[in-house]
Amino acid sequence: MNDVCIIGVGMTRFGKHLDKSLKELGKEAALNAIEDVNIDHSQIEAAFVGNAMAGILSGQECIRGQVILNDVGLSDVNVINTENACASGSSAFHLAWTAVASGVYDVVLVLAAEKMVYQDKNKAFKALESGTDVEQLKNFPGYCENSKGKSIFMDYYADEANKHMNQYGTSIETLAKIAEKNSYNGSFNPYAQYQEAHSLESILQSRMISDPLRLLMCSPVSDGAAAAVLCNKKVASKFSTKPIYVASSVGVSEVGSTNDKSTVERAAIKSYEKAGLGPDDLDVLEVHDATVIGELLAYEQLGLCQKGQGGELIESGKTKLDGDLPVNPSGGLISRGHPVGATGVAQIVEIVWQLRGAAGKRQVSTDPKVGLTENVGGFINNDNAAAFIHLLKK
Amino acid sequence: MNDVCIIGVGMTRFGKHLDKSLKELGKEAALNAIEDVNIDHSQIEAAFVGNAMAGILSGQECIRGQVILNDVGLSDVNVINTENACASGSSAFHLAWTAVASGVYDVVLVLAAEKMVYQDKNKAFKALESGTDVEQLKNFPGYCENSKGKSIFMDYYADEANKHMNQYGTSIETLAKIAEKNSYNGSFNPYAQYQEAHSLESILQSRMISDPLRLLMCSPVSDGAAAAVLCNKKVASKFSTKPIYVASSVGVSEVGSTNDKSTVERAAIKSYEKAGLGPDDLDVLEVHDATVIGELLAYEQLGLCQKGQGGELIESGKTKLDGDLPVNPSGGLISRGHPVGATGVAQIVEIVWQLRGAAGKRQVSTDPKVGLTENVGGFINNDNAAAFIHLLKK
Repeated sequence: MNDVCIIGVGMTRFGKHLDKSLKELGKEAALNAIEDVNIDHSQIEAAFVGNAMAGILSGQECIRGQVILNDVGLSDVNVINTENACASGSSAFHLAWTAVASGVYDVVLVLAAEKMVYQDKNKAFKALESGTDVEQLKNFPGYCENSKGKSIFMDYYADEANKHMNQYGTSIETLAKIAEKNSYNGSFNPYAQYQEAHSLESILQSRMISDPLRLLMCSPVSDGAAAAVLCNKKVASKFSTKPIYVASSVGVSEVGSTNDKSTVERAAIKSYEKAGLGPDDLDVLEVHDATVIGELLAYEQLGLCQKGQGGELIESGKTKLDGDLPVNPSGGLISRGHPVGATGVAQIVEIVWQLRGAAGKRQVSTDPKVGLTENVGGFINNDNAAAFIHLLKK
Repeated sequence: MNDVCIIGVGMTRFGKHLDKSLKELGKEAALNAIEDVNIDHSQIEAAFVGNAMAGILSGQECIRGQVILNDVGLSDVNVINTENACASGSSAFHLAWTAVASGVYDVVLVLAAEKMVYQDKNKAFKALESGTDVEQLKNFPGYCENSKGKSIFMDYYADEANKHMNQYGTSIETLAKIAEKNSYNGSFNPYAQYQEAHSLESILQSRMISDPLRLLMCSPVSDGAAAAVLCNKKVASKFSTKPIYVASSVGVSEVGSTNDKSTVERAAIKSYEKAGLGPDDLDVLEVHDATVIGELLAYEQLGLCQKGQGGELIESGKTKLDGDLPVNPSGGLISRGHPVGATGVAQIVEIVWQLRGAAGKRQVSTDPKVGLTENVGGFINNDNAAAFIHLLKK
């Protein structure tokens, strides 16, 4: 298996871009990544494109990647279109990594893009339902016929938050500290949808979305795109003096397994084993804080702390920007935003910037050599339908 | 790069299955392929699922594979969802091949499934429009606001047929002989949607769809699924005494290239080069006869004959079931049917059966050792958006 490097990264600012189409967002991110490595467009042999919901939101199904990339200046490429709900981006990255690792291609583009913001705000919430088994939707916790004003996933996360609070005595103030940290981090990120640091008090007083989760504890509806150029290590020196290596790329899905470990836990175990690394080797992480409880559970599922001790970890300050193990220096899904199919690649872009020491005011102080991204998508059988973990190293 | 074998194949009968859901069709094909190789379900490490239009047709976007495979009995798998319009199935096969070639997995499942037949017959025709750039749809040849009774792709194919007839003097009778051949072949295929051999006269008198293409010269709207189990050659002997090898797996997409060769021509050149094989080595083919002109153009694009001589090749009888180079022994898309996302894998399943000598009454008489599948999807910039070619050998 060939070693694989990330040689170029780029993204759009995430946000509510009513004036921009999926094509425009995707093109901007792709060109940013290609320009980052200063490669000739003709050297890109394939493109792996992640998008979750354009079929439902815009009617553009089937050949999304070809349509988005149609005037980016690529020529003789194979375009692969993939989706895995909120993990569509890391699904695309995983396929790109696999293709370069196999030797089928030496240089490939990964593009992850999502357009969710339309005049009708409920359109995106409705489309998010397709991240579940739509025939079983009525059995989904908190489902109502005309979902208004929120995604049904917020009810799932609220349920998880209540369980953690009841079982381990985690307080809502502790959970809110994750939002406080991430909004602080996001205030330094020019690519973030929200660049305002919120006080604990304002987070705890924001509008209730699904008890106990309040607005500022949840990721927003967003537009955006992120991209990366990957290559075989053997040719990396031709293109870049600062390649970042993919130490492992692992995906685990839920299909009615009797396994008692969650998809994230199983993906974490495999990731560490494949990379020959463990939680103690990590210097920086981007995790899937679709809501605050998502980040707290990630702490435990990734082995950063014992089960039930996620609250103590956030209270310790260790995961803050200036802590020993910074988590979501970008601001995470809560502040950077969450254009669902784009998130997985945006996480990887952030870790690359951090490992390069190029993250500006939000650069972590751990002199990072190893970073991890955790990205999940969809729900089925009361677990994430897909979980992808990437370990990157200098 | 590891050598990759196909060790198990299976499919549903293609047809109009108003009583069957996408889940039921997918499950049936997956179980058929798994039972064909008699493998323990737990040995399957990943599943690559191709589907083109469920997002639009049923609202099931995002995690189609997890939903379809939810009670097939797999356990610790990674599910990849991919789409490439009518080439979704071969896109999934290509990704599965890449993953095994890379060494990421040793044993994987490919599943391609499509449910197109609903009470509202126009639903599928409308959904097929998503195989183009939907923003540019009004510029598509033959587009009308409320497409009724046919797919817009039939107008594209009619245009191609007229061009060939004008440029090379190909007659409609010659084109109809492709439908005659394929309906004859389909009459021996228990998996085919249509199992009736049509006379040349009845083909030429069937209802006009898009001049000069008539009903029996076009593929129908269909439901169905097809599946395969792939493994690393190193472990193949554990599972099968009759593995079929993937000699090459190539995809080429259209993204605004200035290349003067079509996606199929480029894919063919790469396929032969990678496999160290040429047109003269082929013993049997399955090609994308979405309409009769599709098969005739494939003859030329795959190098079976010179450009403009596709008509002579069909007239020679060489591509008949008992000819020296049988094409579409299954009945092709015209008779086996065309559940769009499933077709690419169904083609591969047929070639595997032919190479095994297990195709029953439609077994070709060339003692086949090498077979080819050609599967295309979508249209953009007046070419197929995606073209995949697979070369398989004993």
